[in-house]
Amino acid sequence: MAKAPVLTPQAEDFPRWYQDVINKAELADNGPVRGTMVIRPYGYGLWERMQQDMDARIKAVGVQNAYFPLFIPQSYLAKEADHVEGFAPELAVVTHGGGKELEEPVVVRPTSETIVNEYFSKWVQSYRDLPLLINQWANVVRWELRPRLFLRTTEFLWQEGHTAHASYEDARAFAARIHREVYARFMEDVLAMDVVLGRKTARERFAGALNTLTLEGMMGDGKALQLGTSHELGQNFARAFHTSYLSKDGEQELVWQTSWGSTTRMVGALVMMHGDDNGLRIPPRLAPIQVVVLAIKGDDAVLAKVREIGELLTAAGVRVHVDDRTDTPFGRRAVDWELKGVPVRVEVGPRDLEGGTAMVVRRIPGGKEPVRAELLPELLPKVLEEDQALLLRQARERRKARTTDVTTLGEAAEAAAAGGWARIRWADLGPEGEAALAERSVSVRCLVTEDGAVPDADDAPGNVAFVARAY
Amino acid sequence: MAKAPVLTPQAEDFPRWYQDVINKAELADNGPVRGTMVIRPYGYGLWERMQQDMDARIKAVGVQNAYFPLFIPQSYLAKEADHVEGFAPELAVVTHGGGKELEEPVVVRPTSETIVNEYFSKWVQSYRDLPLLINQWANVVRWELRPRLFLRTTEFLWQEGHTAHASYEDARAFAARIHREVYARFMEDVLAMDVVLGRKTARERFAGALNTLTLEGMMGDGKALQLGTSHELGQNFARAFHTSYLSKDGEQELVWQTSWGSTTRMVGALVMMHGDDNGLRIPPRLAPIQVVVLAIKGDDAVLAKVREIGELLTAAGVRVHVDDRTDTPFGRRAVDWELKGVPVRVEVGPRDLEGGTAMVVRRIPGGKEPVRAELLPELLPKVLEEDQALLLRQARERRKARTTDVTTLGEAAEAAAAGGWARIRWADLGPEGEAALAERSVSVRCLVTEDGAVPDADDAPGNVAFVARAY
Repeated sequence: MAKAPVLTPQAEDFPRWYQDVINKAELADNGPVRGTMVIRPYGYGLWERMQQDMDARIKAVGVQNAYFPLFIPQSYLAKEADHVEGFAPELAVVTHGGGKELEEPVVVRPTSETIVNEYFSKWVQSYRDLPLLINQWANVVRWELRPRLFLRTTEFLWQEGHTAHASYEDARAFAARIHREVYARFMEDVLAMDVVLGRKTARERFAGALNTLTLEGMMGDGKALQLGTSHELGQNFARAFHTSYLSKDGEQELVWQTSWGSTTRMVGALVMMHGDDNGLRIPPRLAPIQVVVLAIKGDDAVLAKVREIGELLTAAGVRVHVDDRTDTPFGRRAVDWELKGVPVRVEVGPRDLEGGTAMVVRRIPGGKEPVRAELLPELLPKVLEEDQALLLRQARERRKARTTDVTTLGEAAEAAAAGGWARIRWADLGPEGEAALAERSVSVRCLVTEDGAVPDADDAPGNVAFVARAY
Repeated sequence: MAKAPVLTPQAEDFPRWYQDVINKAELADNGPVRGTMVIRPYGYGLWERMQQDMDARIKAVGVQNAYFPLFIPQSYLAKEADHVEGFAPELAVVTHGGGKELEEPVVVRPTSETIVNEYFSKWVQSYRDLPLLINQWANVVRWELRPRLFLRTTEFLWQEGHTAHASYEDARAFAARIHREVYARFMEDVLAMDVVLGRKTARERFAGALNTLTLEGMMGDGKALQLGTSHELGQNFARAFHTSYLSKDGEQELVWQTSWGSTTRMVGALVMMHGDDNGLRIPPRLAPIQVVVLAIKGDDAVLAKVREIGELLTAAGVRVHVDDRTDTPFGRRAVDWELKGVPVRVEVGPRDLEGGTAMVVRRIPGGKEPVRAELLPELLPKVLEEDQALLLRQARERRKARTTDVTTLGEAAEAAAAGGWARIRWADLGPEGEAALAERSVSVRCLVTEDGAVPDADDAPGNVAFVARAY
């Protein structure tokens, strides 16, 4: 008799499988206020490692961290017309503070362009102060009617970058650099994610931006998820907040700006892009625990061996956890590490000791084989790099297999409904076609050029649209 | 003619000197909503390094990071009577979300004991789940009527630890361990701060705690500042939230808890404990920039030399910044680095090149001397460690010099008013004396034993009170 699955199978009900994984792998719980989320230690450990790696990449392009207040006067948002229109329906409003009703209500930041510009306008005086490159790691709040853990939550954690430049070209190049050099490289190299880089259509653009660059990923059910965005803000906020500088020629000029963000949603994407019916599969370069060494039984020789292997692997630069909780049944622990997606398990029992081997179980390709214990420190770093590459390859192959080239709106909608993506010439779709698709809950995820590059304009000839259902 | 000072001298007006430093060293600005704060990159860089170091120490005692929501249902706070009484006057309340009035208003977390317990009560089932050791890095909001940047702000950043244990003894030992092993060691070893470790009186205890352990520092004007606290919560929150576990004996028992926090206030303390009339003095172990190498003039040989020195020092493990902005006058740059408290400046001009030397200027002891450039990589790491030790010694000596042993309430109040601390037997003061001092804006900072240890109880015989004015 087959044992009952721990998780709802993906093919049966993907959203329920997702909920099951989040719950059973102890990534997060629903918060008490609708749409909020408690990130549990295992989930937060993934986010922490994403933060560390991204933070280094953000600093490497010359950006400095700072911190702006959570509370923004309501009047600030109103200064940029498109911005307030986009965010007003999602705001949380504080009306009382310190036991009194406030004279002016304050909003809990949904994003910080307005308050950042209030300060940029003070800090920027001359061309010498530019470019001004700032990032913050913070929580933001956007009231969410149909919340889903990590993917859409009322409060989420993110980094938001805000920059000011002396010219349009410089700002534009910087937004593109973040898009490609920071976000895309991080997602591909560390998260092993397959991402399409493109530009958003006018309909999907950030409220207040001239252009939004996006990274889109295909999840395990063929739906799309937006993984990060980088915006060219032009002079829209500079105009609203009088953020100007004295140019080399002695003229007072408005700055050109960018903003860009990536969020805890990436944890949800990690689950949905790499997970399978047995749970998570964490890319080795991200994994807080790359290898777990399990004692099958609690006898002294086994315990000594798992600790010894743990030390050898640590010395070889592997992030190891030794599981010697032998008062919990081995099978339960093995299933739990599988659920949690730890890339490699090394299992040691009395019989392995006799043979001088350990059982190496690989989570990503699956399969197990006995390996002589002394070979592990040389073997496992290679295995981890192989499996990192495999995850990315599998994600790429899935997108390739599930993407259809089409020429009509009807075919595009059909491909999306069938759980895949469609590629269609933007000239064959256009804003009207996009609006018609929206009524069928299908959206244009992004535009790319014929050869897959990021286009300079929405209506550049040859632009191709990726069309899909999305989270 | 003496040049006009950049800062208000400390002796003239200490609070104004503090404001000047925060402003001129570009640490922070006031936010638009009363009491909020914008932390600028240089100030945030100090906080970031504090975070990194503390985070490693917190993890080293077995604690894991997680994240709990910003929004807490108002009803949660009411569950623990003392807690709500303490925090109600400082709450910020969200009444509207997503364009609608909320059915139940939510508070912006002033601290997270209540929401943490809601989840601990779900996560803890058996004695095997204990101890549960959790920390979060987050922002919190406490409405502040008399705000001062870093010291008292409506929103501040902090870490808050929350733990649950199977016994009173275990919880108590853990609170003490955080107090001594994490907070005190960090503050002494990294921040070079002189701290008194003691216990708070009942009057000064955290709202909902059985006991609060504190670290108190003396600022440059002789006032006291609370630098971190670690609370024994007993079973107060466990009772309110039914946080219980099945013991080894098969009994359902309430857990015993601790909570503990340290905040961005430490940045303000750093300014006020180590700063002088020329600005900040950053302890070398904390300093994001330990050594700045300045080109006095912009000629090629000088620029090549400062870059070479920068590389040599980086290779020697020093955190270096090369200042080659020779379009800004040298004098202005030198004053700016002095203001910012960078521990060592290495200044190179054409004349130094001829002699093969560089001018080494030490911010902490003051003074400058020429050093042969090739000796810098060996010399400067030693200088940095010496100056780290000197800062701590100076802080200790100041406290010693400005602390008076007294025997009456009147003498204690006088010593505090004169800009110092008083030590008085707690038996000679007691809660009535403490209340009388409070009317003169003087407080009992903490209680210690006769030989300076942390007492087991408020009324242990021989307890001594430190009495001072405080920020």
